[in-house]
Amino acid sequence: MEKALMLFSGGQDSTTCLAWALDRYAQVETVGFDYGQRHRVELDCRAPVRAALAARWPGRLGADHLIDLRPGMAALGETAMTAEVAISMGAEGLPNTFVPGRNLLFLTYAAALAYRRGVRRIVAGMCETDFSGYPDCRDDTVKAMQVALNLGMQRRYVLETPLMWLDKAATWAMADSLGVLEIIVRDTHTCYLGERGVLHAWGYGCGTCPACELRAAGFERFQEAR
Amino acid sequence: MEKALMLFSGGQDSTTCLAWALDRYAQVETVGFDYGQRHRVELDCRAPVRAALAARWPGRLGADHLIDLRPGMAALGETAMTAEVAISMGAEGLPNTFVPGRNLLFLTYAAALAYRRGVRRIVAGMCETDFSGYPDCRDDTVKAMQVALNLGMQRRYVLETPLMWLDKAATWAMADSLGVLEIIVRDTHTCYLGERGVLHAWGYGCGTCPACELRAAGFERFQEAR
Repeated sequence: MEKALMLFSGGQDSTTCLAWALDRYAQVETVGFDYGQRHRVELDCRAPVRAALAARWPGRLGADHLIDLRPGMAALGETAMTAEVAISMGAEGLPNTFVPGRNLLFLTYAAALAYRRGVRRIVAGMCETDFSGYPDCRDDTVKAMQVALNLGMQRRYVLETPLMWLDKAATWAMADSLGVLEIIVRDTHTCYLGERGVLHAWGYGCGTCPACELRAAGFERFQEAR
Repeated sequence: MEKALMLFSGGQDSTTCLAWALDRYAQVETVGFDYGQRHRVELDCRAPVRAALAARWPGRLGADHLIDLRPGMAALGETAMTAEVAISMGAEGLPNTFVPGRNLLFLTYAAALAYRRGVRRIVAGMCETDFSGYPDCRDDTVKAMQVALNLGMQRRYVLETPLMWLDKAATWAMADSLGVLEIIVRDTHTCYLGERGVLHAWGYGCGTCPACELRAAGFERFQEAR
């Protein structure tokens, strides 16, 4: 009966992964990060999502941890992920929403927390298919981080990324097969701009930022294939 | 004329490395971390040490950055490095001053800063000889981190650790050969307990904590071999 720690933001991907982990592990704790993201409404989604998933898998959802990275991240400068600037493509084919090292920091803090909590499996929603090309979401990066974390902490963590090779339509299908489609649509947040106005078939959001476009287009393809 | 970023705490090891980097690179920026360490007096040493080294290598010392990791580190729980508890050996042969992932976080933040500053060489004082057995100071860990950081940030950083295979006596000898022995003795801080009372031949400190013992014994061996 293994325990897991889930990097849980309140968004579509990490909520789908959390459902995947709850379906598979006896006890799943969650950790979130406040790094001054523009879409901080995402963090407000964490409690309702957790409540809905706890009802679906009684007794499996453990403690929640929220780590405040705001002063440290602010010292590194701003990106379109944290400041009110237009989202666009920058140099090297990376969008200006790229926060250098963001997921590396998340994985390192998660592993340090797992050290204290005696947890071996760390589950995260990174995905290199269908994504904005962030290098810290790639499979090579996550696997290299597992080696570095295990050497640096004298542990044998396993970093699990169930969405790594799925596109957004497949992520919707996974949520459906886990019986959490409605929770994803209603309770999770994806929009980079933090918009929560109108409930579309695929959820809340502006519908036009890169994150909304991916979510909405994936939902459409999932519905067509259903 | 290469630029470097130095992980600079104000302690003996990182000051010696900073001198090494200033001797070798055209421009060296420094980054420090406030993580609520008991020996925060170390941070107060940074400015006088920088001033002394800037005078020794005119025009080479660049900007200083201080990153506040206190809220994030506090969320991970306490160790003898951050709380008023006696220093002792814990499980797995690790002292209870071990902060899981501390140097991994430092390297990741430094790399994120190097990303913004356009710096390729990251210099750090990790050392696996003569040290408390922290796994995040080992050469394997640093090399694995270089791979993870480079994959995750799409960069080609070089992590340099000039002290990795030196013992403390050899570190003192390096400081001597760089002409900074007096600066190390007078201006740097090592003592875990933050003691700054009496100036010994080897510097300030309680003289009995593990960090002072290493510093003082290394100095004695360096003097004998001189």
